[in-house]
Amino acid sequence: MNVAEYMSELGQKARAASRLMARADTGSKNAALDAMARVLDASREQLVAANQKDLENGRANGLDAAMLDRLELTPARIDTMIEGLRQVAALPDPIGGITDMNYRPSGIQIGKMRVPLGVIGIIYESRPNVTAEAASLCLKSGNATILRGGSEAIHSNHAIAACVSQGLVEAGLPAEAVQVVETTDRAAVGELITMPEYVDVIVPRGGKGLIERISRDARVPVIKHLDGICHVYIDDQADKSKAINIAINAKTHRYGTCNTMETLLVNRAVAAEMLPELAEHYAELGVELRGCAATRELLPQVNEATEEDWATEYLAPILAVKVVEDMAEAIEHINRWGSHHTDAIITENYTKARAFLREVDSSSVMVNASTRFADGFEYGLGAEIGISTDKIHARGPVGLEGLTSQKYVVLGDGQIRQ
Amino acid sequence: MNVAEYMSELGQKARAASRLMARADTGSKNAALDAMARVLDASREQLVAANQKDLENGRANGLDAAMLDRLELTPARIDTMIEGLRQVAALPDPIGGITDMNYRPSGIQIGKMRVPLGVIGIIYESRPNVTAEAASLCLKSGNATILRGGSEAIHSNHAIAACVSQGLVEAGLPAEAVQVVETTDRAAVGELITMPEYVDVIVPRGGKGLIERISRDARVPVIKHLDGICHVYIDDQADKSKAINIAINAKTHRYGTCNTMETLLVNRAVAAEMLPELAEHYAELGVELRGCAATRELLPQVNEATEEDWATEYLAPILAVKVVEDMAEAIEHINRWGSHHTDAIITENYTKARAFLREVDSSSVMVNASTRFADGFEYGLGAEIGISTDKIHARGPVGLEGLTSQKYVVLGDGQIRQ
Repeated sequence: MNVAEYMSELGQKARAASRLMARADTGSKNAALDAMARVLDASREQLVAANQKDLENGRANGLDAAMLDRLELTPARIDTMIEGLRQVAALPDPIGGITDMNYRPSGIQIGKMRVPLGVIGIIYESRPNVTAEAASLCLKSGNATILRGGSEAIHSNHAIAACVSQGLVEAGLPAEAVQVVETTDRAAVGELITMPEYVDVIVPRGGKGLIERISRDARVPVIKHLDGICHVYIDDQADKSKAINIAINAKTHRYGTCNTMETLLVNRAVAAEMLPELAEHYAELGVELRGCAATRELLPQVNEATEEDWATEYLAPILAVKVVEDMAEAIEHINRWGSHHTDAIITENYTKARAFLREVDSSSVMVNASTRFADGFEYGLGAEIGISTDKIHARGPVGLEGLTSQKYVVLGDGQIRQ
Repeated sequence: MNVAEYMSELGQKARAASRLMARADTGSKNAALDAMARVLDASREQLVAANQKDLENGRANGLDAAMLDRLELTPARIDTMIEGLRQVAALPDPIGGITDMNYRPSGIQIGKMRVPLGVIGIIYESRPNVTAEAASLCLKSGNATILRGGSEAIHSNHAIAACVSQGLVEAGLPAEAVQVVETTDRAAVGELITMPEYVDVIVPRGGKGLIERISRDARVPVIKHLDGICHVYIDDQADKSKAINIAINAKTHRYGTCNTMETLLVNRAVAAEMLPELAEHYAELGVELRGCAATRELLPQVNEATEEDWATEYLAPILAVKVVEDMAEAIEHINRWGSHHTDAIITENYTKARAFLREVDSSSVMVNASTRFADGFEYGLGAEIGISTDKIHARGPVGLEGLTSQKYVVLGDGQIRQ
């Protein structure tokens, strides 16, 4: 069978399963999640054996140590996967909730009911635990899923998918509600992202290259996350200790995350007071600074920042620093060079805090808090399928609600249109 | 200048204007809408003169009577356009509203602020009044707009756009917040729908051919409306007079609208009671019926319906009729053959009403009400830019809120991530 036919068949099965999932009650969905957790727990040997095959192939194919590490299913990672399923079971069911129910002058009553999107395609790289995590979020939100993991993790993904299917069947839900693409042929991705008749949305999880490729070629909506070029702006009316704590935390709490600060903007009036002390802390922590001319006047040892630095997500212990005249220049810089992800102002001034919140065009805008808080768990979503840097549909951390839509429900008493 | 350069320049200006529009206060936006209404009122002569040119060209180019009618700017239509602007001014401003503001265990406070999408591209056909209407909705929702009307209405559209620009400038808002594409070159549409750097969403308004073409080629999200294949299902526990009133109203109130019923589904147990009486009414009103075998047993004069009829949006006095065994078959038929637009059940049974609302996968699902109510004004949205048959972002009638997004706002007190 060729790849196009195979994917189309997968799509048809997913579409059919999605109809059953849409009407599945909360109890069945939670029972399936609990069953999956139980089956995974009972299948540890098979999971490790399958994972060994992937690791051996990976070593034979020359994968680097970081890749091999991401690929490995350690007992602790299996524990985390099982715990994750139980946590999703404990989350409230988003489906079926009705809001804004009001009477209209015609006598009809109208509201909005939360419904699943339908079929969600997930495309991801190396980490096999994503198989269980993505499946659980799609399941809880009443969707069917087609999962396409990295070819290097194919045996691990199939072993996990077998447990997931068994859990679904034990709870009386269709096994096809979660399907893993069986072929490692790259053409399968091309098919998956161009079948709007079977797939309602694609969520790519992986590097920027993968996501850009998928966004360019998709004929299905994509919930995507590109860069995280986050800023902290220290205003001239900032509280000094808050400013220093947040500037250190936003950069150094973790270097590789999308909500890490990449550029620090400092008001000229407080640059001399803030920058030398900050530079000392950063130096202790091994963070390289790259500064504008005004920064380098205060900190002569700092390398020069170019325009390229303003547009770079370092994901590393490097920080670009710019001195700005006022908040307007900071906002201008953020909206121009940032990635509309997460940006913070440090200020005690009420009016400036209000203006910053309104005028910065980012998915998360913060006052006196570290950019590192931009996260589905910190925001109380209970789960996170990703962070969207788009404005359409979902913006910022995407939890279960991002995998749903709303339909209008109209209750009448025989009303007709006049 | 070539079309690509021209459109890219338009896009850059729109992007710059969108930043100013995002922070424009409600008073300025309303002042602009009022000024536009005033300028249009004072420019009736110029509007009619420009429209005369379009009508003359249209006649010379052999446009049919229906097209010429849609193209014409009568005094009454100018009144409606002016009144429309004043109505949009009177609507509440969706921008800046903050919801779901809650404290988290970390001490940060988090909520969602409603924000504009940015730049909206509107692509439409003949009716020049869309220029003012679309401009007003995008303006009120804080967006910049690029309008691309039909080439047959180019002089009318420019005359209206001149009034719109003057209104913007009088209110101190950027004239580039509403731009009309000056060229009739078709390549301009191709550019408009493939510049995600300048355009955040496309709203096509026109025939199905136009919308399909745009959806296929766009690299920007499209809020679109395709078919309206709407159903009414008369349950065996329907109240007879409600069923008959609604079945007549849903089909015959207007034939050319997307929320008109195209297929009537009748439960076998009440078919003999309902169908002959309904057929009489339809015959009086000149509606042609096309029925399944069971329908034709009861109504031998009715033509045969084929599968093509189940999939057709007639937009005409034609109705497909099918007898079904039970509600499950009705739902199955609707989800398979419908267009996920608007579907209604007529029943007095509480449990079936509840199941129908949950299981029918359409943007509006109704109990005991005419499908003709699926409309932004009837739903209380105050305005309607279109009806979306998509699930992503906006579904069903799209009002001002459909032209907005939400960003997270985080208020802290110096919190850092632990």
